[in-house]
Amino acid sequence: MRLVAIIGVGQTPVREHWSLSLRDLAIAAGRSAMEDAGIEKVDAIYVGNMTSGSLNQQRHLGALVADFLGQWGVEAVRMEAACGSAGSTMRQGILAVASGEKEAVLAIGVEKMTETSGSEITAALTGAADADYEIIHGVSFVSLNALVMRRYMHEYGYTQADFAPFAINAHANGANNPNALFRRSISQKDYVTGRSVADPVTLFDASPIGDGAAALLLVPADKAPSAVQVIGSASATDTLSVHDREDPIWLEGAMKSASRAYAQAGVGPEDIDLFELHDAFSIMAALSLEAGGFAERGQGVRLAQEGAILPSGRIPIATMGGLKARGHPVGATGLYQLAEATLQLREKAGKAQIGGVKIAMTQNIGGSGATVVTHILKKPGH
Amino acid sequence: MRLVAIIGVGQTPVREHWSLSLRDLAIAAGRSAMEDAGIEKVDAIYVGNMTSGSLNQQRHLGALVADFLGQWGVEAVRMEAACGSAGSTMRQGILAVASGEKEAVLAIGVEKMTETSGSEITAALTGAADADYEIIHGVSFVSLNALVMRRYMHEYGYTQADFAPFAINAHANGANNPNALFRRSISQKDYVTGRSVADPVTLFDASPIGDGAAALLLVPADKAPSAVQVIGSASATDTLSVHDREDPIWLEGAMKSASRAYAQAGVGPEDIDLFELHDAFSIMAALSLEAGGFAERGQGVRLAQEGAILPSGRIPIATMGGLKARGHPVGATGLYQLAEATLQLREKAGKAQIGGVKIAMTQNIGGSGATVVTHILKKPGH
Repeated sequence: MRLVAIIGVGQTPVREHWSLSLRDLAIAAGRSAMEDAGIEKVDAIYVGNMTSGSLNQQRHLGALVADFLGQWGVEAVRMEAACGSAGSTMRQGILAVASGEKEAVLAIGVEKMTETSGSEITAALTGAADADYEIIHGVSFVSLNALVMRRYMHEYGYTQADFAPFAINAHANGANNPNALFRRSISQKDYVTGRSVADPVTLFDASPIGDGAAALLLVPADKAPSAVQVIGSASATDTLSVHDREDPIWLEGAMKSASRAYAQAGVGPEDIDLFELHDAFSIMAALSLEAGGFAERGQGVRLAQEGAILPSGRIPIATMGGLKARGHPVGATGLYQLAEATLQLREKAGKAQIGGVKIAMTQNIGGSGATVVTHILKKPGH
Repeated sequence: MRLVAIIGVGQTPVREHWSLSLRDLAIAAGRSAMEDAGIEKVDAIYVGNMTSGSLNQQRHLGALVADFLGQWGVEAVRMEAACGSAGSTMRQGILAVASGEKEAVLAIGVEKMTETSGSEITAALTGAADADYEIIHGVSFVSLNALVMRRYMHEYGYTQADFAPFAINAHANGANNPNALFRRSISQKDYVTGRSVADPVTLFDASPIGDGAAALLLVPADKAPSAVQVIGSASATDTLSVHDREDPIWLEGAMKSASRAYAQAGVGPEDIDLFELHDAFSIMAALSLEAGGFAERGQGVRLAQEGAILPSGRIPIATMGGLKARGHPVGATGLYQLAEATLQLREKAGKAQIGGVKIAMTQNIGGSGATVVTHILKKPGH
């Protein structure tokens, strides 16, 4: 298998984009990645998206994006794994280049969510969970996470306020990222007075949806010796329903996905300088740190309290705001994470730049941990 | 790149499956392919599906299928390219094995369409076309095909009745396939008295939707010397909208897709013994024959009239009923075509068996020719 490098990065700000359509967003990010790479023709376009069939009455995004990017004739397809769609899109792009068949693949994640009603959005998002065995009982995605968070608090003796460092760090970092949806810091007091969404999840434990697109351009690493390299790429699944897991407060899929990526890359958690994790909810951030080997069971929250997740800490997370502050345009998020990690490794992250980043990890999660895609990126020459 | 072989085939009958859910269908086909292959564990599961987010309120089918097939932890993702979803799923399965990373990949196409209203189904299917530039004008998929058929008739001087051989052949062949939705022959008189759906498309020019799933198990060819081999695999796109094409009665994407597959396989149309084409509408069958090099421009209908598409003809098509009679569970169709071609090459097609098939071609189309996926399969030892 050929090693893959990232030679182009593109992204739109995450916003309520009232003047930009689903298509506009995808094309803007795709074109931007191609311009960044300095190339005008690609061999394949893979598009990650979760909800456009319902929220935008548009499927078939592969052909649509190829057409409107002027890449007529190119192979194109859409990938979907709920909120893990964009990470999964990256996976397939890597396999296509690694196989030797494709020399330049554009991976785009796009989601346009804010042009419809909240109930339609909630309904579309529930498709990530099990329609027949979870959703039919009336739970939403937020309440599923609330159940997991409550159990975690019970098991390890935390209070809701103990989770504050995740949101405070994400918002502080988002303030340094012009593409973030929320660009202002919050205080401990803001956090503890956040209104309840689904107890114990408050407004500051839940990431906001948004409109946006992010894109990467992938080529064989030997063609781009000075580009960021993908040294680990792995996807794993867990049961679709939380209630089917032996242990509902352990992300088995995240553990498997990270372990496979570590093995490929020949590194361990101790080698990771930055971890763009899937903080769709505070509890998911804590569980991801544990599954990735950065904290013992039950210690993910403690790690955050100790400051290890800060830009200056042992394992910075959400360095550009994370899902919590950059925003969570669901099917685009995985590629936002990868774009941000690439910028950090290029030392082009602006005010959000973290010092000394040689190896970065990203992790994109679909559903309640049912699909987990982990990538490990390396700074060139390191 | 490693050559890929097909060691397992599974399918459910195409029906209105009132007692089987989306999940039941996918699992039945997947398990059947694994049993056929004689293996109990796969490395990855790719699921093709077009409409489940809307029609079944269920997304995230990769993780769902992995879970309910008992393949916990395995990589899994869904692919979507409208009615070309299953062919695109096969493509990614092939790239994953060819890359050297995966040793056994299960490709499943599934669609469960008949549990909802016709208007919801029509709305979901329009997502294959351009929502902003085609569908907004009030066209449906049937009427788009009617426009193309009308133009073709005008340009080449055919009448609607000239298209009869496509439906008559498909229904006669479907009668020999126990998995087909329609299992009875039709006469010329049936065809010409078929009620109009969108003039000139009649009931017998349009394929029926249905519920169903088909699956293949893919491994490196060197591990299965006696299995059917995939010697060509290529996908191409065209403009999403018909009105954006220089020539609306020419399938440029089909030509590109077939040409790439021929080049890979080192064969030409003269070497193909059987062609499972995408006869969603009679006009698409004619255009596919032309784009694939089996007939000159405007001669696809003539080829059918001359009997070349019959089981005994020069280039048999729809040998198990095609989309017209086997039925068109949209996101599963591409894998039904591949499953049927594999059975023909194995000489296991029962009453539908065609003699002397050494090389078979399949072609799965998304939208009005915007995504076209072509595969060329070879009998082992040939």
